[in-house]
Amino acid sequence: MTDITVRSEQVCFGGTQGFYSHESEACGGSMNFALYQPPQVRNSGKLPLVTFLSGLTCTDENFTTKAGAQRVAAELGVMVLAPDTSPRGAGYPGEDDSYDFGTGAGFYLDATESPWSDRYRMYSYITRELPALIAERFPADMSRQGIMGHSMGGHGALTIHLKNPDTYRSVSAFSPICAPMQCPWGEKAFTGYLGGDRETWRPYDATELVKSKASGAGILIDQGAEDDFLKEQLLPEVFVEACKQAGQAVELRMQPGYDHSYYFIQTFMEDHLRHHAATLLA
Amino acid sequence: MTDITVRSEQVCFGGTQGFYSHESEACGGSMNFALYQPPQVRNSGKLPLVTFLSGLTCTDENFTTKAGAQRVAAELGVMVLAPDTSPRGAGYPGEDDSYDFGTGAGFYLDATESPWSDRYRMYSYITRELPALIAERFPADMSRQGIMGHSMGGHGALTIHLKNPDTYRSVSAFSPICAPMQCPWGEKAFTGYLGGDRETWRPYDATELVKSKASGAGILIDQGAEDDFLKEQLLPEVFVEACKQAGQAVELRMQPGYDHSYYFIQTFMEDHLRHHAATLLA
Repeated sequence: MTDITVRSEQVCFGGTQGFYSHESEACGGSMNFALYQPPQVRNSGKLPLVTFLSGLTCTDENFTTKAGAQRVAAELGVMVLAPDTSPRGAGYPGEDDSYDFGTGAGFYLDATESPWSDRYRMYSYITRELPALIAERFPADMSRQGIMGHSMGGHGALTIHLKNPDTYRSVSAFSPICAPMQCPWGEKAFTGYLGGDRETWRPYDATELVKSKASGAGILIDQGAEDDFLKEQLLPEVFVEACKQAGQAVELRMQPGYDHSYYFIQTFMEDHLRHHAATLLA
Repeated sequence: MTDITVRSEQVCFGGTQGFYSHESEACGGSMNFALYQPPQVRNSGKLPLVTFLSGLTCTDENFTTKAGAQRVAAELGVMVLAPDTSPRGAGYPGEDDSYDFGTGAGFYLDATESPWSDRYRMYSYITRELPALIAERFPADMSRQGIMGHSMGGHGALTIHLKNPDTYRSVSAFSPICAPMQCPWGEKAFTGYLGGDRETWRPYDATELVKSKASGAGILIDQGAEDDFLKEQLLPEVFVEACKQAGQAVELRMQPGYDHSYYFIQTFMEDHLRHHAATLLA
């Protein structure tokens, strides 16, 4: 069995909120993740798994402490996985210079530019290495997986679902970066990780991906109408327009008054987990 | 009107989670607090107010980000106030030397020992100055107040209720310090803030207080059975025995598997707010 280190395990809503670490091959070093196992693990066999991808600057802890997901997961009988947002401590020049590139900003892609390509391989980590580890060590039913995320993690959830619709059968996002090729965050990250050839960016842009192939799932997106990043960085209407043309089912809910924070996320977390459960527990 | 500074206000479950600061007379300097106003403030006139007192090392932020109270408060139509746990930056010798005395450890009492007596006056702050400010600036119905807290803040909630049962009509606690005169945390704090005469400690010890006078309210206490502090510091059974002899209604729920953390608190937050609402919304 692959080694994992239990950093902590605490009872929460009758289940277990754990924080773990392990040596990652994809990311070339130790990676942290958090996993909530609801009380049903004790008598229901394997349970569905929903992965939450966090946004810029986050670790595995922000979502786990602030989103209020455990209560709903315990009611529904769903496991919830919160990975970290990047490798840590690679030591590359500039790695810690900005909040939107390098540490805490892995963008859920496999970098091709040196030196990032050596360890910044979050796409492989999230879609292959970490699920294999979870399947080996925890009672998760890997045939019933969903994916969601926030901001940079919303970009991750949309792209990973669109590229792997049979694996991640349900998808939702909070204030996702919907068209990274058209916004400053995305352009900076893609240039740094993938280089100057914009053609190589397309497989990591939800709007470009959906143009080439719709998934069978219905996508749920919540977006705060007062989100400071809405107009420059997130561009949900660009994605919705592409979905419309591609025949992709999507529901974009503009939430009046809400911002980009976990006060927004926790408000709609129950809706999102129920959206996933509607597919995964059907 | 008394000046307050809005540090932030964010929409959460349709209401407003605010962080504020103001110049406190009782505490001789700037004090922070957090207040959640549920959506009902817009059309229901004045609403009940539940104050949550936090434990050692906490600020007004721990409860507000981790306890999941806003969802339930929004459903019930209750305001929730989270004060800080001590004055900050008084500059007294030793103020920042330990986690259980000085900064972050005000113990909800009025210190009588120099130099603490000048600014460490959390009892007056919580029971008089802050409520007056809230009543002036927010639509809270001060005739319908409840109080709850965790650990050191559970001690605060129990003692403040028992001394002011007509003001704080409902009370509950998570893993409270129940008999501070009999535990190391209490003995250290009371010696430092109140001096060596143990008689002066009694008004700040829930077990001693209940012996002299029961309140008409029913006290709800949740306690994690795997809490590391249970046997040395918290002593709920000592309090329950004193309640029994005094005719004080108390329900102590030992929760198997739970520890001292906010993963425990969030699990039972809904029960506690409903306990308060049963009195305050009756």
